[in-house]
Amino acid sequence: SQSDRYIDLHYSDVQLTAHKSCRQRWNIRPSEMSINTLNPIRAIVDGMKLTPNPEKPMIALSIGDPTVFGNLPTDDKVLQAMKDAIDSNKYNGYAPSVGYQKSREVVANFYSCPEAPLEAEDVLLTSGCSQAIDLAITVLCNPGDNILVPCPGFSLYKTLAVSLGIQVKLYTLLPEKSWEIDLQHMESLIDDRTTCLIVNNPSNPCGSVYSKEHLQNILSVASKHCVPILADEIYGDMVFPGCTYQSMASLSSDVPILACGGLAKRWLVPGWRLGWILIHDKNQIFGKEIRQGLVKLSQRILGACTIVQGAIESILNDTPQEFYHRTISFLESNSEICFSELSTVPGLTPVMPSGAMYLMVGIEMEHFPEFQNDVQFTERLVTEQSVFCLPAFEYPNYFRIVVTVPEEMMVEACTRIREFCQRHYRTCSQDSNELDQ
Amino acid sequence: SQSDRYIDLHYSDVQLTAHKSCRQRWNIRPSEMSINTLNPIRAIVDGMKLTPNPEKPMIALSIGDPTVFGNLPTDDKVLQAMKDAIDSNKYNGYAPSVGYQKSREVVANFYSCPEAPLEAEDVLLTSGCSQAIDLAITVLCNPGDNILVPCPGFSLYKTLAVSLGIQVKLYTLLPEKSWEIDLQHMESLIDDRTTCLIVNNPSNPCGSVYSKEHLQNILSVASKHCVPILADEIYGDMVFPGCTYQSMASLSSDVPILACGGLAKRWLVPGWRLGWILIHDKNQIFGKEIRQGLVKLSQRILGACTIVQGAIESILNDTPQEFYHRTISFLESNSEICFSELSTVPGLTPVMPSGAMYLMVGIEMEHFPEFQNDVQFTERLVTEQSVFCLPAFEYPNYFRIVVTVPEEMMVEACTRIREFCQRHYRTCSQDSNELDQ
Repeated sequence: SQSDRYIDLHYSDVQLTAHKSCRQRWNIRPSEMSINTLNPIRAIVDGMKLTPNPEKPMIALSIGDPTVFGNLPTDDKVLQAMKDAIDSNKYNGYAPSVGYQKSREVVANFYSCPEAPLEAEDVLLTSGCSQAIDLAITVLCNPGDNILVPCPGFSLYKTLAVSLGIQVKLYTLLPEKSWEIDLQHMESLIDDRTTCLIVNNPSNPCGSVYSKEHLQNILSVASKHCVPILADEIYGDMVFPGCTYQSMASLSSDVPILACGGLAKRWLVPGWRLGWILIHDKNQIFGKEIRQGLVKLSQRILGACTIVQGAIESILNDTPQEFYHRTISFLESNSEICFSELSTVPGLTPVMPSGAMYLMVGIEMEHFPEFQNDVQFTERLVTEQSVFCLPAFEYPNYFRIVVTVPEEMMVEACTRIREFCQRHYRTCSQDSNELDQ
Repeated sequence: SQSDRYIDLHYSDVQLTAHKSCRQRWNIRPSEMSINTLNPIRAIVDGMKLTPNPEKPMIALSIGDPTVFGNLPTDDKVLQAMKDAIDSNKYNGYAPSVGYQKSREVVANFYSCPEAPLEAEDVLLTSGCSQAIDLAITVLCNPGDNILVPCPGFSLYKTLAVSLGIQVKLYTLLPEKSWEIDLQHMESLIDDRTTCLIVNNPSNPCGSVYSKEHLQNILSVASKHCVPILADEIYGDMVFPGCTYQSMASLSSDVPILACGGLAKRWLVPGWRLGWILIHDKNQIFGKEIRQGLVKLSQRILGACTIVQGAIESILNDTPQEFYHRTISFLESNSEICFSELSTVPGLTPVMPSGAMYLMVGIEMEHFPEFQNDVQFTERLVTEQSVFCLPAFEYPNYFRIVVTVPEEMMVEACTRIREFCQRHYRTCSQDSNELDQ
């Protein structure tokens, strides 16, 4: 159908030359691109019949926004940095489309390390990490190319790629190996139109944090097949004590990497829309052309709000370590509560995360014969228990829990999930007996 | 070549099926879209040999940013609104991709009028007016379609359209009629692939403000050929006393309009990146589909910084009228200085603006035989007089002056332009004599 479309367009070009007429009546159609911009979260949420149990207040474990319950405020230094930027009167005009030079330098210094040094020229500031991912995909891929995307994974990769006519190939993550990539599967998907491998570490929705060895293995596959990496590291450094986060770039000897990040998660201000692309290209494989391509694409709509850009120096350099520790401790504590509660629920297999803000829970569907799939399961969890979790997109029989909610809400949600599962759980032998009768 | 590309793509699809090989060596190329994202301002500025006269300090009349010289600060109420939004701690999380409901309502109320009523649902908040224009073009046009764009005009329309494979047709503005549209020329460009007519009023770079009658005539053409309008009204209400600004939508009986605007110019904070699309569609010609298309496109990267969204209510409702008047008075006064100075310069024909921040100056090239065109003229103005003006893109023999600079700078610039013209001016008869000898 991809090739059909090109034929259609070609055909209408010919028509155009034949008779150059005008429209006689109104007939305004939305563009192919807007029709092809599909947001699976919206589709699921809108499709779900959300009538929560009126006797129980709703608990939403579905929203990847750490600010909604007020229990995870950003640091006062972060707020003060913004007010100082406003008072300075220096940040009201246009910034360069790639961001202020000084702000790029600050981000470069913050993320530079001996193994993967960065300078201001290696940084583009963007309107949130979403625009960073958009620019990175857009500069690397043409319509008809394909990208490799984790499954389960963040739905935006597919939304952006499909809207641009880029094919998405899903590679599988392995829950039994703490959501490591099935490298064989991933490698089997690569062909000569594969122009980008997206690696999301730490992961949304899995909360996994890859070991140095696993990251090196991913890099080996990319290196062998000469596929550049888009490293979505928006949850970078958000890992629990005892676990180590390493950026892909710090381990890459040859694979060029566009690392995407931003203020949203670690600094708990997702609405401020400050993101960045860090260009790692030791061997000049991206070269000048990809850099120039990114600069040119950044000129389409410009990037981040200048007040936030003006505040970034103080945000990165003055935020106390204690703030980061407090956030991580809370996320770990809530994850442990959720994991240990759900571990003893018959029919559920939670996977303990090592970072980020999420925990994935497997549903042993054979024990819940009333439900055809994870969507029905999570749907009924809303109508009976007023607990809202999102199913894992395109990955069967798992749902995602956001662990940023207040502790008492997390405890109450787990209790309700337990009740729900106890009510609907059937042992497999029971099932067969029932079927036999 | 458009159809060639489709054939190429089709051909490579076939290849793909034949041998599904992988890459053996690195060969990363920037995408077609990034290559096709062309910014003519950059091309001109980078191409110019900018070695100003070391004996004269540089005066840049080239930058459409009212904040650069500090003489046009935004209002204290605007800054206070931002600080209040920060202190409230209510605007750090994700907003809906189309903006907070309350913020959309505030914008709707601010621009609603009996002839073109607006509700919150008719407003999308965007990352600056650039994203508003991008979304509007993207929802209305497919690759191969064409849009009508003013000439001279703001270069972003072409940059965005060409990067999306949309053809641009330039319609001519008439300097002798205060830059009104040559309606016959515009109408002659319309064909059955014309999916959008862009009207920029008040105009960058012309500073023109269209009369009610002219706007009605434009609407008649659009109505006759059933072409929707993208009204770029970022300079809306920025008109000099005695002149009246009317929005296109307030005059349209049937033509559906996407009106784009933002905080950048009138509130003097272009870096803050808050723009909007106002959907005017009395007769449901856009209908639900275009609205949904815009919503879907807005979900690709989300929109404006939430702090600015939180501040918008106070910015729109509490900024004193005196602030707007002061800005307009300054722009008018500077325009008059510039116009009256340059009116008496031999070989120049300035056109007095009625609004916005610009004044266009015609160059009687026959009197400046040393220069081949406006680019060479403005180039030499830099090297000899350290005055930097941008030539009018794709419109011969005019250059644009930004009138937001401090008054003394404007006066000095005009003096230097006069000197320059006196030095290089040749009467036409002189020229012929010279040629005859």
